[in-house]
Amino acid sequence: MTPAEELSAVVASLKPDRAVIVTDSNVRPIAEEYISAVGSVVPAGVFILPPGEQGKSLEQLASLAAFMSQSGLSRNSLVVNIGGGCVSDLGGFAAAVFKRGVRTVNVATTILAAVDAAIGGKTAVDFLGLKNQLGAFHIPERVIIADDLLRHLPREEYLSGLGEVLKTAMLDSRELYLEVLKDCGRSMERPYTPENSDCSDKADWAEKFAGIISRCAEFKEEVVRRDPEEKGLRRILNLGHTAGHAFEALAARKGDAVSHGTAVAHGLLVSLILSHIKCGFPSLSIYPYRELLQKLYRRLPVKCSDAEALADIMRHDKKNTSGTAFNFVLLRDFGVPEECVPVSKEELLGALDIYCDMMG
Amino acid sequence: MTPAEELSAVVASLKPDRAVIVTDSNVRPIAEEYISAVGSVVPAGVFILPPGEQGKSLEQLASLAAFMSQSGLSRNSLVVNIGGGCVSDLGGFAAAVFKRGVRTVNVATTILAAVDAAIGGKTAVDFLGLKNQLGAFHIPERVIIADDLLRHLPREEYLSGLGEVLKTAMLDSRELYLEVLKDCGRSMERPYTPENSDCSDKADWAEKFAGIISRCAEFKEEVVRRDPEEKGLRRILNLGHTAGHAFEALAARKGDAVSHGTAVAHGLLVSLILSHIKCGFPSLSIYPYRELLQKLYRRLPVKCSDAEALADIMRHDKKNTSGTAFNFVLLRDFGVPEECVPVSKEELLGALDIYCDMMG
Repeated sequence: MTPAEELSAVVASLKPDRAVIVTDSNVRPIAEEYISAVGSVVPAGVFILPPGEQGKSLEQLASLAAFMSQSGLSRNSLVVNIGGGCVSDLGGFAAAVFKRGVRTVNVATTILAAVDAAIGGKTAVDFLGLKNQLGAFHIPERVIIADDLLRHLPREEYLSGLGEVLKTAMLDSRELYLEVLKDCGRSMERPYTPENSDCSDKADWAEKFAGIISRCAEFKEEVVRRDPEEKGLRRILNLGHTAGHAFEALAARKGDAVSHGTAVAHGLLVSLILSHIKCGFPSLSIYPYRELLQKLYRRLPVKCSDAEALADIMRHDKKNTSGTAFNFVLLRDFGVPEECVPVSKEELLGALDIYCDMMG
Repeated sequence: MTPAEELSAVVASLKPDRAVIVTDSNVRPIAEEYISAVGSVVPAGVFILPPGEQGKSLEQLASLAAFMSQSGLSRNSLVVNIGGGCVSDLGGFAAAVFKRGVRTVNVATTILAAVDAAIGGKTAVDFLGLKNQLGAFHIPERVIIADDLLRHLPREEYLSGLGEVLKTAMLDSRELYLEVLKDCGRSMERPYTPENSDCSDKADWAEKFAGIISRCAEFKEEVVRRDPEEKGLRRILNLGHTAGHAFEALAARKGDAVSHGTAVAHGLLVSLILSHIKCGFPSLSIYPYRELLQKLYRRLPVKCSDAEALADIMRHDKKNTSGTAFNFVLLRDFGVPEECVPVSKEELLGALDIYCDMMG
């Protein structure tokens, strides 16, 4: 069954009286098959957002809600979000509040959405310049991965998504992590992007990568099922994000922005170093990751002298601190996360120093 | 402990880092004691809505969210709604979506809020002229009944709230229903309103009435606890509302609007008649209610010849229909509700005919 056929079957099984499809202007031209898949089962209108964070505003939410109202959506209807994280964030939030909740199905068209954003029901809009300031928890009925669209992502999007894939694999198991490492190794020589889509083992690679994506998606689904409102366990999904967010913020401040996934990929190295210091994570397992990071990702505009500034940014992120300590998700080994390890400022500065040394 | 002291204690026990108080311009001048009760425990700003449905707009939601943001509210903060249903609807919705949910405490200053609107977590704004079109389920940490403010409601507000009190008592038990009937009998001669606040048994009456309000609030809390998202049981709270909403809509259409509670009070009589026809509800128990309705409430601008129009309105209310039948919440006896009884159009028209005869 293709993902579009799966979408038809899922929509039919939910028996909605009608549907609204939410997508963005970048995805719309390549989503015809998915739109038809919904339209063949139930009367459906299409609402098109501007791409990226522009779509995540209260104004767009009001426009979409008006469209839903004019389309005659009832509590028995369905919202189908086809796109990346911004589409499922906005479309999911509108679905969460329309008549206090209509069901959603997410079709993930980016790696980031497939392994993270589309799963778990976190929805939101940005407000007054603050990211995800207003939102709701609204678990989708189903997440479908648009494998065929994932294959055509530009390299930057691929790498950004890969950051979350690496994170999830590290949390899941040594076995999945090594599989991703091996697969990324191949993709390093021949990344699966349009410019070299004629590489001979394309189909083979794509199939393996799709399998990895599915396993990461299943891992997140299981974590969310066990802790839907992030009261505890779900926090492990922040692995690599404490340092990652600080890298992202500092790079933006220096006028040399990096993608979320790139920042997370670097944040993961800091986490592995701290994991070694605090939780006995085997140091030998750090080097292959360092190698991957250097080969695949761009360097960050961060120097050893930025360590204090980075610690400052982490301190202001309320999720991360309790009293004077920083809270990190760390690993005793791949697949064995520790949810909340207190790290002193000295330990953090030490780890950032090692990170700088390792990245040369 | 006074309700204001209770509020202080509740806020202290929740240990918020700060609070925003939401109220409206009608309630603000009489809410000083409650505002101070919050402010004495935690830093708190006050946001004032325009009164009534005007406050329930997406624009007001955005203004309140901006105020919450500027006040530095975190996920560990608290929203305290002091007012009637419109205040807890808007304030509760803002709290539900701000950073995906901050806690709320509702202080009910009307009977309607105390026994219904403030309880159970239904929050909403009106949108494009449609009532409660956007909203969320967001159960408050606690509902406090501002007894002292309830005593000073104008007669129209008192009667509107009494409609929901009667409904709840009918669902709860014959015993509570008879108590309300008796108490209302006294209030018929000497309603507890400002114009006769010197009646000799004021304190006695007020205390009894406060007890009734509390029991109604507890009943609703228990129903909501057992079915928070209205998947089944919670629907019994619609007793009297199917016909009530139709009365309300028809009266408005005729340019002679009646309050929600008045329409529900009349809708309850239709429900009792149908309950007799369909569920063997004892006919002798209908007459005392008819008597109360005639003595206490205004007549509706509805004639026997309006029966078809009323049935039409009920048909368009999607909650009420399945196929050709109308779905009613009915009673086998007081305290013994039937959640979903299919009623044919002929039966409905018959019941409306009896209603018209009874109301003479």
